[in-house]
Amino acid sequence: MEFPSKLIESAVGELSKLPGVGKKTALRLALHLLKAEADTTATLAEALAKMRFEIRYCDTCHNISDTPECSICANQLRDQSTVCVVSDIRDVIAIENTAQYQGMYHVLGGVISPIEGIGPSDLTIDSLVERVTKEGSEIREVILAISPTMEGDTTAFYLSRKLRDLPELNVSTIARGIPMGGELEYADEITLGRSIVERQRQAR
Amino acid sequence: MEFPSKLIESAVGELSKLPGVGKKTALRLALHLLKAEADTTATLAEALAKMRFEIRYCDTCHNISDTPECSICANQLRDQSTVCVVSDIRDVIAIENTAQYQGMYHVLGGVISPIEGIGPSDLTIDSLVERVTKEGSEIREVILAISPTMEGDTTAFYLSRKLRDLPELNVSTIARGIPMGGELEYADEITLGRSIVERQRQAR
Repeated sequence: MEFPSKLIESAVGELSKLPGVGKKTALRLALHLLKAEADTTATLAEALAKMRFEIRYCDTCHNISDTPECSICANQLRDQSTVCVVSDIRDVIAIENTAQYQGMYHVLGGVISPIEGIGPSDLTIDSLVERVTKEGSEIREVILAISPTMEGDTTAFYLSRKLRDLPELNVSTIARGIPMGGELEYADEITLGRSIVERQRQAR
Repeated sequence: MEFPSKLIESAVGELSKLPGVGKKTALRLALHLLKAEADTTATLAEALAKMRFEIRYCDTCHNISDTPECSICANQLRDQSTVCVVSDIRDVIAIENTAQYQGMYHVLGGVISPIEGIGPSDLTIDSLVERVTKEGSEIREVILAISPTMEGDTTAFYLSRKLRDLPELNVSTIARGIPMGGELEYADEITLGRSIVERQRQAR
């Protein structure tokens, strides 16, 4: 695709580096910005740069934060005895949106993936172990809320091995089964099989 | 959706103002930028701001340009006698990509749309008429390459009325019919009907 202007060409080039944005979408976004008020672009550019250069990560849980301690870790009303381990910041936001969890978090920053060259030392696993074993730690339960993929299960297994020397610590995992609204006949065999083996008592 | 950081919240807010970008996509883009090199964000922000604030529009054809005269208008090798009228800069890029057209362009900047409050005076129609009627003008043909929608047809009709006092000027429109690879049975009735009435002689 040839562009009549170098300026638009470089803007389209940069936009199309974003995930899920191709050349045509990038051009549509660039032309949208050109048609909109100049302020829109200025605010967008500034918000992106500010986010990238000023954002911090919580020293305790590695969640994104504006301050050295994130708002969840700083909240004394939350249950300090439970830590929910997730791979990604997105998972924190997703779980927070359910409003069903009042404990703390620990963001691993990914999952163990030999193919992508991500080993345990690239994640915040040591920081989690330190947090749990630290003197005076109130943590009684670690919930492994990691996506049940090959890499996720490997990570969960590695973590439970790392934590098994702590007999007083409960390690749990999120419930797996048929999702709400899901059709039994379309569920995969492994999920359906496990959901029968690990059946739950019906509330009566 | 609640965010753990005001910085990411404002970046997601600004990104989700882009067309076709919802809150979830915006968050994905923001987290991608956070994970990528800081340079990526800096270059993107700079390219967007530079594009918005430094881009110019060609004085003659209103195409985007880095200079007062765009590269197409400045190219003396192109056919100065034909002007292709399009609604949008995107159409110029699309026609240029076909490599089938060697003439000039005129970008209207939209189509007449009473619903959106866009009248003839909001478009560069006067500039086109002036360009065609100017003393010494070499323009012999105006091609109306406007999308055959309700608004597009209205605009084309308005333009042809504006230009009908120039008997020496040929006004043409792009060919309409069944697109290449299109199935006759799925074509709409109006297109199919017109493609039969305006049938073309088969090359033999």
